[in-house]
Amino acid sequence: MSAPRLLRAQALTAAAFAAFGDVVAADGHDSYPINQGTARRYHDLARVDVSAQRGRAAISLVRAQPQAPPLPLRLMERHPLASQAFMPLTPASFLVVVAPPGAAPGYGDLHAFVSNGRQGINYLQGVWHHPLIALHQVTDFLVVDREGPGSNCDEAAISDGEVTVAL
Amino acid sequence: MSAPRLLRAQALTAAAFAAFGDVVAADGHDSYPINQGTARRYHDLARVDVSAQRGRAAISLVRAQPQAPPLPLRLMERHPLASQAFMPLTPASFLVVVAPPGAAPGYGDLHAFVSNGRQGINYLQGVWHHPLIALHQVTDFLVVDREGPGSNCDEAAISDGEVTVAL
Repeated sequence: MSAPRLLRAQALTAAAFAAFGDVVAADGHDSYPINQGTARRYHDLARVDVSAQRGRAAISLVRAQPQAPPLPLRLMERHPLASQAFMPLTPASFLVVVAPPGAAPGYGDLHAFVSNGRQGINYLQGVWHHPLIALHQVTDFLVVDREGPGSNCDEAAISDGEVTVAL
Repeated sequence: MSAPRLLRAQALTAAAFAAFGDVVAADGHDSYPINQGTARRYHDLARVDVSAQRGRAAISLVRAQPQAPPLPLRLMERHPLASQAFMPLTPASFLVVVAPPGAAPGYGDLHAFVSNGRQGINYLQGVWHHPLIALHQVTDFLVVDREGPGSNCDEAAISDGEVTVAL
């Protein structure tokens, strides 16, 4: 039996995550004043793409129980019809594990990122991802994804077996 | 000169807000387990409606400076083409002031609500609303609204003059 393959999480940045989706955060984005100067708007931060096959945007909440790395990863999922965004509703860091679109990913395809808690993410359509991993507390996320006809969730085992993700 | 008309805010509830839009919150909604039991999903909590005139859903952030009621209200706005949702990104209460769709609202049309900080809101298309009022701290909101061609913001003075909103 071989040793578990270790996947180390890196800090989430827009540049490192660009091939997989968007980092939803104020930092690093321009803004402009609104509401008679009482607020600033950071506009259009994610590539929302939900209209395939008569889909529409839906707003949901996900309440995730915390988990403590190192953790085994076995299963990935993807949404072939739409993007999917998650934004934490309290400043709480969490783990994001992704792999490029295409065939079921193996160890060498996986990338892990840690949000600083003020960053959300938006997976592009078809990007493989592990279910989000809350780290330190029960964490609520606002989710913006697709509702509509058609099959919009594929699951696949990591093609070459279990991987361990660590901070 | 007449005394300012006082608008008292009430606690935000789905029932009281239903004519104006949706309360985005876990409380009071069914959920189901996802992600191998590590999370629960509260699905499709808002009537997102952004596709008129080739619109698409956009995700933005708004950073609002706190204000201390009692406050004067003079101007309302509406989005004739789309819904608009705001979700606080930290548990911080805020004030919501709305009026039904139609002609420019007067004092008697206004309703004020206080979010408990774990509730977001989604204004229905055409609902008059005051810019959100953060109360106790600088508050970031995730915004889900419309990007696309066409004019999607009308402003109107409160038709019978300034109103004072209070907690």
